[in-house]
Amino acid sequence: MDAAQEAHNREAFRQAVVNTLERRLFYIPSFKIYRGVAGLYDYGPPGCAVKSNVLAFWRQHFVLEENMLEVDCPCVTPEVVLKASGHVDKFTDLMVKDEKTGTCYRADHLLKDHCKDKLEKDPNLSAEKAAELRHVLAVLDDLSAEELGAKIKGYGITAPDTKNSLSDPYPFNLMFQTSIGPSGLSPGYMRPETAQGIFVNFKDLYYYNGNKLPFAAAQIGQAFRNEISPRQGLLRVREFTLAEIEHFVDPDDKSHPKFSEVANLEFLMFPREDQVSGRAARRIPIGEAVSQGIVNNETLGYFIGRVYLFLTHLGIDKERLRFRQHLANEMAHYAADCWDAEIECSYGWIECVGIADRSAYDLRAHTDKSGVPLVAHEKFPEPREVEKLVITPVKKELGLAFKGSQKMVVEALEAMGEKEAMEMKATLEAKGEAEFRVCTLDKVVTIKDTMVTISKEKKKEHQRVFTPSVIEPSFGIGRIIYCLFEHSFYTRPSKDGDEQLNVFRFPPLVAPIKCTVFPLVQNQQYEEVAKKIAKSLTAVGISYKIDITGTSIGKRYARTDELGVPFAITVDSTSSVTVRERDSKQQIRVNVDEIASVVKGVIDGVSTWADILWKYPTHSS
Amino acid sequence: MDAAQEAHNREAFRQAVVNTLERRLFYIPSFKIYRGVAGLYDYGPPGCAVKSNVLAFWRQHFVLEENMLEVDCPCVTPEVVLKASGHVDKFTDLMVKDEKTGTCYRADHLLKDHCKDKLEKDPNLSAEKAAELRHVLAVLDDLSAEELGAKIKGYGITAPDTKNSLSDPYPFNLMFQTSIGPSGLSPGYMRPETAQGIFVNFKDLYYYNGNKLPFAAAQIGQAFRNEISPRQGLLRVREFTLAEIEHFVDPDDKSHPKFSEVANLEFLMFPREDQVSGRAARRIPIGEAVSQGIVNNETLGYFIGRVYLFLTHLGIDKERLRFRQHLANEMAHYAADCWDAEIECSYGWIECVGIADRSAYDLRAHTDKSGVPLVAHEKFPEPREVEKLVITPVKKELGLAFKGSQKMVVEALEAMGEKEAMEMKATLEAKGEAEFRVCTLDKVVTIKDTMVTISKEKKKEHQRVFTPSVIEPSFGIGRIIYCLFEHSFYTRPSKDGDEQLNVFRFPPLVAPIKCTVFPLVQNQQYEEVAKKIAKSLTAVGISYKIDITGTSIGKRYARTDELGVPFAITVDSTSSVTVRERDSKQQIRVNVDEIASVVKGVIDGVSTWADILWKYPTHSS
Repeated sequence: MDAAQEAHNREAFRQAVVNTLERRLFYIPSFKIYRGVAGLYDYGPPGCAVKSNVLAFWRQHFVLEENMLEVDCPCVTPEVVLKASGHVDKFTDLMVKDEKTGTCYRADHLLKDHCKDKLEKDPNLSAEKAAELRHVLAVLDDLSAEELGAKIKGYGITAPDTKNSLSDPYPFNLMFQTSIGPSGLSPGYMRPETAQGIFVNFKDLYYYNGNKLPFAAAQIGQAFRNEISPRQGLLRVREFTLAEIEHFVDPDDKSHPKFSEVANLEFLMFPREDQVSGRAARRIPIGEAVSQGIVNNETLGYFIGRVYLFLTHLGIDKERLRFRQHLANEMAHYAADCWDAEIECSYGWIECVGIADRSAYDLRAHTDKSGVPLVAHEKFPEPREVEKLVITPVKKELGLAFKGSQKMVVEALEAMGEKEAMEMKATLEAKGEAEFRVCTLDKVVTIKDTMVTISKEKKKEHQRVFTPSVIEPSFGIGRIIYCLFEHSFYTRPSKDGDEQLNVFRFPPLVAPIKCTVFPLVQNQQYEEVAKKIAKSLTAVGISYKIDITGTSIGKRYARTDELGVPFAITVDSTSSVTVRERDSKQQIRVNVDEIASVVKGVIDGVSTWADILWKYPTHSS
Repeated sequence: MDAAQEAHNREAFRQAVVNTLERRLFYIPSFKIYRGVAGLYDYGPPGCAVKSNVLAFWRQHFVLEENMLEVDCPCVTPEVVLKASGHVDKFTDLMVKDEKTGTCYRADHLLKDHCKDKLEKDPNLSAEKAAELRHVLAVLDDLSAEELGAKIKGYGITAPDTKNSLSDPYPFNLMFQTSIGPSGLSPGYMRPETAQGIFVNFKDLYYYNGNKLPFAAAQIGQAFRNEISPRQGLLRVREFTLAEIEHFVDPDDKSHPKFSEVANLEFLMFPREDQVSGRAARRIPIGEAVSQGIVNNETLGYFIGRVYLFLTHLGIDKERLRFRQHLANEMAHYAADCWDAEIECSYGWIECVGIADRSAYDLRAHTDKSGVPLVAHEKFPEPREVEKLVITPVKKELGLAFKGSQKMVVEALEAMGEKEAMEMKATLEAKGEAEFRVCTLDKVVTIKDTMVTISKEKKKEHQRVFTPSVIEPSFGIGRIIYCLFEHSFYTRPSKDGDEQLNVFRFPPLVAPIKCTVFPLVQNQQYEEVAKKIAKSLTAVGISYKIDITGTSIGKRYARTDELGVPFAITVDSTSSVTVRERDSKQQIRVNVDEIASVVKGVIDGVSTWADILWKYPTHSS
């Protein structure tokens, strides 16, 4: 199958899924009667139920099982917080404007579309040109505004809708801005992630945890990004639900007590080196990935394993799930390591969970901005004698030598790490002077032995004070749900073979409705039995849908298969009923009094359908 | 006890509760390290768990038991939707500004504080003046901007912080405004309620429900109000969680099939007439309230009953819960009836749930604005002959008589209801002319019999097309939780009697943590048993906290009583353990293997503590 045919099939599959999803109200564009707003979607009843189920399982799998501290912070956030986190200055995408109409586009999207289009559709493309375009696609995320602008001009890219020329790219901040209070003087934003609410509370949470590390805090909530031009349906939206974990850990000890529980899990991993050298993702046991240093530390590895269990338990296909390590250029400068759980769907491999070791960056940023030290303490059982590095710049000498630049040189000297300082000490002692790079001046200066003294002093310390590292698994719930929809969808011919019927093979955990109750024919007796069963299902907390229309049973099955309902209960007598499993279409007979507990058993995973098939008489339809 | 003493006690009680809540991180002011933002709070771990539990029970009690259609819509809302709903024009509070500093205040708050202060603290107040101030307090919500301004000037009220003079009151819109997309041309707001997301989806939801009425849709989510000056802690905040139900029903049939299930419930009701005539709230069975016409209809009554069950099940004190009917001047002009569930706390009686029959207002407003008919259909089994009112204004005659006002007169004539039209017809036939009030002109005009013909025509109709009424129970989750905190809080002396210990008597359903596990002394054997128990608790889905500090058991009990943990498991042997109930402090002994299922039984309500006391040996501490 060639690439074009494959692309066509993917499109057709996606259309079938999305049509079913929208027709059955899993989700719909928001404010449809007003012609909608790009990038905003409503979850209708079945979608909302799936989302609730996914979040409930997330709470069980992460918060409850790991005893995490769950918090719930507001979406409205004052500017100072997002200034400290860097979002006010750096949370931007590059935008170009149609010079006549003012319509806005994401600059990288236009360039990406242009390259892809050429590569897919231009038969006269030279090998050389094709290689160039492929290179552009590979480095797209790294291009500066100037570079992007130059490419757009160079390739003659114009506004897609009008063919008008485009402005130079400029940064557009993706936060929704607002104003807090009536004065108009307190700018605020709708949070772009939930994590900041946790970081600013570190001190209280650490105290709540008995001043002990490690611990994790978690938050589920809405986040907002004012995308320039949203596309790809649920995958890139302006408001979405995030579930984030911030696991605070001693930077000197990132081991995890429960790592052995996941160490043998084996799944597709895509380390940085393999990506760079053009190899494919491969199966690696996570224990091996950590011991070989592919994954930076045990805690990061533990979460990768737990994320794998979470996603596959929901029904994500193991074969279409991989953990991809960020390339050096993708990673924030402060990050120690970062892996994305990527799920393959018709749009390609989509980042659904990011699992990053963000080191001490966030806590330090808020410490600096707020003046409140967000640190942890390790009390020593008895005082320890430690050697402390002491760097004393001789300001007079430095002033004479560097004049206006003195301050920067002093700061750079004081900021030296132990290794660098001891090397300088040795050089100064040997040669009387040393070369020294001052980053803030962007040049190398010569330091004489009269300009600084470097020594080590012994001190008694009673405790260690440090900024914890944070390991952050961050889940895009809408993206996970969309991929789950695609992975769960299939079609099968109707009984007469004249049409294709849609099915979602949701596991009971995820299914929006756990079972349906159908009286076989419209009569009062059966309807009363149906009501009795409904009541018993409610009593055990099983969601159901009752369908008393006179439609044929086949049609009613087809309707509920499309909602992914795992079990259908047909009332065809007053004492026992038929239960049909969605995917196998196998049927068994169960007494009316037992039905609720039998269904509950399978749904809670206490028994399997196979167990039940053994126990109860089967029924041929 | 006099009023001042009572006020003092209330304050002291509130301080004790709030101190405990903030110290144990039930909730804390958001962004505390940056000195916070008024009206924004974080739920810390125990508060977040309580909130989750309340919402889970809400879903069980309303959505699941009533088969409601739950939806999940975005917070970001385009202007057109909130223009249609009336929020852009009318969702305002009256504000005054300090004329020198620009500080903003809510005008009614200043007037209210002034009157209360005078009444409470001015010993020289004349009886006449006191009566006047009391009257102002009673009509406060009805005062126009002009009236409020006049009172503020008249009483010489100045800015509380500076004593500067104040501006005239002017309306301030309480919605957080933002801009959707990069153009800056699409204004949007953070939704002030979740209801609009449901209304705009009526057509799809009606279809999803098989085009049948009645049905209810429900939504849990964040809502936002940019309060001028937030106060009263969790009760008046700028961002909060709402849980709203929109029950759509045929306006001609507001009966409810399950009304009999609640009809015998009896609780404090405070009908309009009793308020006006100065009587107290009284116990009325809800069935009687509906049959006597105190509550407008069965569906409204059914929800009042269900709300009562919901709140009391959470632990709200029956004696401090009342349902107060809106006075005529409080109710929106379109509302048929409206009752608030009010809970008494240290701030007085607080509206926590509003239960309103909003008639067809919202669906009509969106029909008008969007052009999409949000209507329901009732198909007749066979066509019906109906009499239709036909009003035909004679435009020529009306034009001659009313010139520029002709259009408004024509519209007013066409908008007449059946009764009014038939009365006019009779008057015209008898006298040749009739007086007619045209609201849009705000005057009465004379209509001659040449200006309009009114008749009834017979027509065959196959269906009835109508706009459903909506009955809306709307829950302020944060307010309910705060009142629950107050109703659950008590203190008791420590064992030595030397200090007061704080306890929250949360029912297990609400408790943030269901049990604690304490090894009696620090040793490895006990700690291993504790871990084994912890694992078995996780397996059955019970949240627990393990405390292996060497602190005395008494102190550990006190710590967890303050979190409202209902059961403490003390590991004092390797085979059996002591379970202690929080409020009675009774203790029993249970085998290690049984402990998880025993605790789960009480927490799920399968058995009571009394049942268990019978079954297991008690233990004296």
